[in-house]
Amino acid sequence: MASKDSNKRVLIVGGVAGGASCAARYRRLCERCDIVVFDRGPYVSFANCGLPYYVGDVIEEEKALLVATPRLFKDRFRIEVCTETEIRSIDRDKQRILAKSLRSGEERWESYDALVLAPGAGALRPPLPGIDLPGVHVLRTIPDSRRIRAAVEEASSAVVVGGGFIGLEMAENLRRRGLGVSVVEAAPQLMPPLDEEMAAFVSATVRENSIDLHLGAAVESFEQLPGGGVRVATSEGVRLDADLVILAIGVRPETGLARDAGLPIGERGGILVDQDMRTEDPAIWAVGDAVEVRDFVTGAAMLMPLAGPANRQGRIAAGSILGALLGERRKQLKPMAFRGVQGTAVCGLFGLTVAMTGASEKSLLRASVADYGKVYLHPGNHVGYYPGAEPIHMKLLFSKVDGKVLGAQAVGGAGTERRIDVIAMALQMGATVFDLEESELCYAPQFGAAKDPVNIAGMIAANHLRGDLPLADWDRLGEPGITVVDVRTEEEFVRGHIPGSRNVPLEQIRGRLGELPRDGEIWLVCGVGQRAYYATRVLLQNDFKVKNLSGGYVSYQAFMEARH
Amino acid sequence: MASKDSNKRVLIVGGVAGGASCAARYRRLCERCDIVVFDRGPYVSFANCGLPYYVGDVIEEEKALLVATPRLFKDRFRIEVCTETEIRSIDRDKQRILAKSLRSGEERWESYDALVLAPGAGALRPPLPGIDLPGVHVLRTIPDSRRIRAAVEEASSAVVVGGGFIGLEMAENLRRRGLGVSVVEAAPQLMPPLDEEMAAFVSATVRENSIDLHLGAAVESFEQLPGGGVRVATSEGVRLDADLVILAIGVRPETGLARDAGLPIGERGGILVDQDMRTEDPAIWAVGDAVEVRDFVTGAAMLMPLAGPANRQGRIAAGSILGALLGERRKQLKPMAFRGVQGTAVCGLFGLTVAMTGASEKSLLRASVADYGKVYLHPGNHVGYYPGAEPIHMKLLFSKVDGKVLGAQAVGGAGTERRIDVIAMALQMGATVFDLEESELCYAPQFGAAKDPVNIAGMIAANHLRGDLPLADWDRLGEPGITVVDVRTEEEFVRGHIPGSRNVPLEQIRGRLGELPRDGEIWLVCGVGQRAYYATRVLLQNDFKVKNLSGGYVSYQAFMEARH
Repeated sequence: MASKDSNKRVLIVGGVAGGASCAARYRRLCERCDIVVFDRGPYVSFANCGLPYYVGDVIEEEKALLVATPRLFKDRFRIEVCTETEIRSIDRDKQRILAKSLRSGEERWESYDALVLAPGAGALRPPLPGIDLPGVHVLRTIPDSRRIRAAVEEASSAVVVGGGFIGLEMAENLRRRGLGVSVVEAAPQLMPPLDEEMAAFVSATVRENSIDLHLGAAVESFEQLPGGGVRVATSEGVRLDADLVILAIGVRPETGLARDAGLPIGERGGILVDQDMRTEDPAIWAVGDAVEVRDFVTGAAMLMPLAGPANRQGRIAAGSILGALLGERRKQLKPMAFRGVQGTAVCGLFGLTVAMTGASEKSLLRASVADYGKVYLHPGNHVGYYPGAEPIHMKLLFSKVDGKVLGAQAVGGAGTERRIDVIAMALQMGATVFDLEESELCYAPQFGAAKDPVNIAGMIAANHLRGDLPLADWDRLGEPGITVVDVRTEEEFVRGHIPGSRNVPLEQIRGRLGELPRDGEIWLVCGVGQRAYYATRVLLQNDFKVKNLSGGYVSYQAFMEARH
Repeated sequence: MASKDSNKRVLIVGGVAGGASCAARYRRLCERCDIVVFDRGPYVSFANCGLPYYVGDVIEEEKALLVATPRLFKDRFRIEVCTETEIRSIDRDKQRILAKSLRSGEERWESYDALVLAPGAGALRPPLPGIDLPGVHVLRTIPDSRRIRAAVEEASSAVVVGGGFIGLEMAENLRRRGLGVSVVEAAPQLMPPLDEEMAAFVSATVRENSIDLHLGAAVESFEQLPGGGVRVATSEGVRLDADLVILAIGVRPETGLARDAGLPIGERGGILVDQDMRTEDPAIWAVGDAVEVRDFVTGAAMLMPLAGPANRQGRIAAGSILGALLGERRKQLKPMAFRGVQGTAVCGLFGLTVAMTGASEKSLLRASVADYGKVYLHPGNHVGYYPGAEPIHMKLLFSKVDGKVLGAQAVGGAGTERRIDVIAMALQMGATVFDLEESELCYAPQFGAAKDPVNIAGMIAANHLRGDLPLADWDRLGEPGITVVDVRTEEEFVRGHIPGSRNVPLEQIRGRLGELPRDGEIWLVCGVGQRAYYATRVLLQNDFKVKNLSGGYVSYQAFMEARH
């Protein structure tokens, strides 16, 4: 269709999350320009987050994964989509790109007024022996998932290499299909974005669901077995034989086209853009997994291949292009600019929900952020008196200077993602732990508690910052001069306790102050931290040197699990 | 137990949410004072929000409802609890209260340095004929619930008077026990805090679950039936016979003691307090359902009997008392002051979740807040390609001046409360719809969408404020000079549409611009609003006078349900 009063052309390379969002948004902003989307694959705008569940047959029909077809783009948005078309190079001087049809092999130049790079990220495939064996799969596209589905039909065992989100989603879905599954992860923990003591709750659940878990085990080679199948050799000397292997060790931004065109690449290997998602070239924007972003909390450069931020970037790029091509005539109550990435993420795994937002302790340390505090808690997802309550294990990170929320991690039952979403919004708005303390959230017996887990997290941190709750450092546990006092009941203490700790039940502590040492530090511990807090208040007001082991015996067990 | 270096006495009248929180918090802040809690009932700190579920046998054991016993208060907190003790009067001059044991009938004076009134609210019992019949029950206490449970054993039918949260929770639980249930509500809608078109989604579900619903029907009398049971007569002339009647028409703050003592009562009938929860008398504080609070959004005085705010108030009062009695020596990074009530609430009903936070349109109009905007949306609770997605019907209210979030209501499937919680936090922090638009929330296929319902709500409102999406006023539908154009497919249009509307499917609209009127307004409608938005963008850029009917045909049906 000819344009009305302009023949400006907007070309978009890559038609999944960021590219598709940008194209559709740009059309809504501007009816006049021509918009063409190119994609190397046979599909645009497909549900890549759904692929593990298609393999697991939770999603039964492949066509359910097709969020939008080229036909819909044409009919609804007047956007031309060229699938199976690879962009070979960018001629920045002449503002044109060289497109090659993968069907016919033909090449043609397409000129642009604005170019958007949304090439995504490809699966990491390190140069290990046997990595290209037919039994070694990655899962990035619909054809990938089709191949894996076919392989699963014939298979009874699988090795998943990589214990991140996608690796574990694959492990669960392969178990669901009845396969025996081993997971091999080079790091000493699952789900690297989590801190290790929080990941311990995940590995416990993964093991309980009959996954054969190998942590701290790097894969060294793959070998074809004579009868079919693949042998995976790991650095721990273990040999795992399986009918198929899934490689899920992460992704690498597709920056070849940008590099070849001389566009700047950032320190983490992604395309560099400004807050408008514009590259150094004023006619070229870039969005999605290939782009380097800022950590919203620490300001550090990072790669964060998530669909939500990719969509936001696509929208922002569209607005920026409109201003650049046609002049900004739109009312802007708030200028749109990409504010960075919080890294909010969630994963469902064998009924467990794992969610996080903002900084982890690891990412704070990496960015040399000092003066942070942390608290652990294990509240129920709803009141205990209503049937079916499950714990949510939480870690909250905050600034010791002003109480600003820095990040949170949670692993637990239904509603875990809800608490992280609330904290994600708090973090976005610059909220402090004092704001969390007095949040007013939904409460009915089956949905939560009058003091929601978010409130409790805020209260514990606020109590600490007000000086009412000095916290001990779990890493210093076992140092001399410290008396650990467990204030649970005798029955609980007998069932399991920190080695070397003494038992003084909370209900007796006021009458037994004389037994407690006045020279060294007393570290109080209970089941999850609440009773130890009460005891801390008693002892502090009686002039003891006292600290609280945040999260209690449940956190202790997680630290132990993480260390072994 | 004798106090250590002070015999200051803190007396608390009422030992459920606010009173119990205040007592426990005060002990944590101060080991030295004496703390005594008085309650007229046989229990303190019981789970009153759980009572309907105890009646419904979801909670099977009565003892599960006892959150804390007098024994626990004594052993753990060194707090004395006097149950079945009524406070008869306050002698403000001598700082003492007259306590009467309901067991022995004895009266005694108890002196205080600080007095906290937490008497709660009692069930409204208007002086209707027959209101005191033994078959007419209210549900406020554990003994109430015990009586109703006993009555249910013998009953096959019930009438619930009142269609608010507690009335509907009771209706569901009585259905669960196998009773035939009628609900009689004087207002023309269920759940009065909701706007009527949002309440329409609730009444539809209630009817689908075989509840006999009478809206706009005031009860005029109760009459004992000869064979047992009660006849309920309503203003619509209907007579309903049932084995038992539950009265759930709301509560009235228990202000008798405060009134008699000359403490100021507010315009809405609650005890007046300042931001520290202190009354006019510097030695008396008040918390919980009996207190008048400020609407966080409109600033209007209101009563809001909710457990969460009551607990917050109890904590704040404790801190204020500490400062008053012992001088403020604690580190205060942020002074605690009661910031008012957002009215965040949730109710689960026959698998439907109903939640809200902040202002409703009704409460904005009541407070004469002009310049607000509203949008409707009906997104899935998670992506459609993952099995089991259910809609969430949402209404977002915001300031047209600066985009500030004013309130939200949502009715829908799992995760409805999660979106309201995120908006509750946004509202608390003064967030705008532009902040909602770019929130970064948890996404995986089974948990949501890359554009979460919260994002979509923000986007629609932000598009409106940026001038990209003019909105029509549903109340003006049917006025002359307006052409309603439905952009759904022909098949959808045939299945049902707004009378008088014309069908031009979105995919054809660019080619059929010539058919559309240029003189009057065009109002676009589709299923839920998305396609109409796309069409709005096309028509606006082709210089039509165009508006969007927010929420589409689904909202239309809700408005119709609300009006009939």
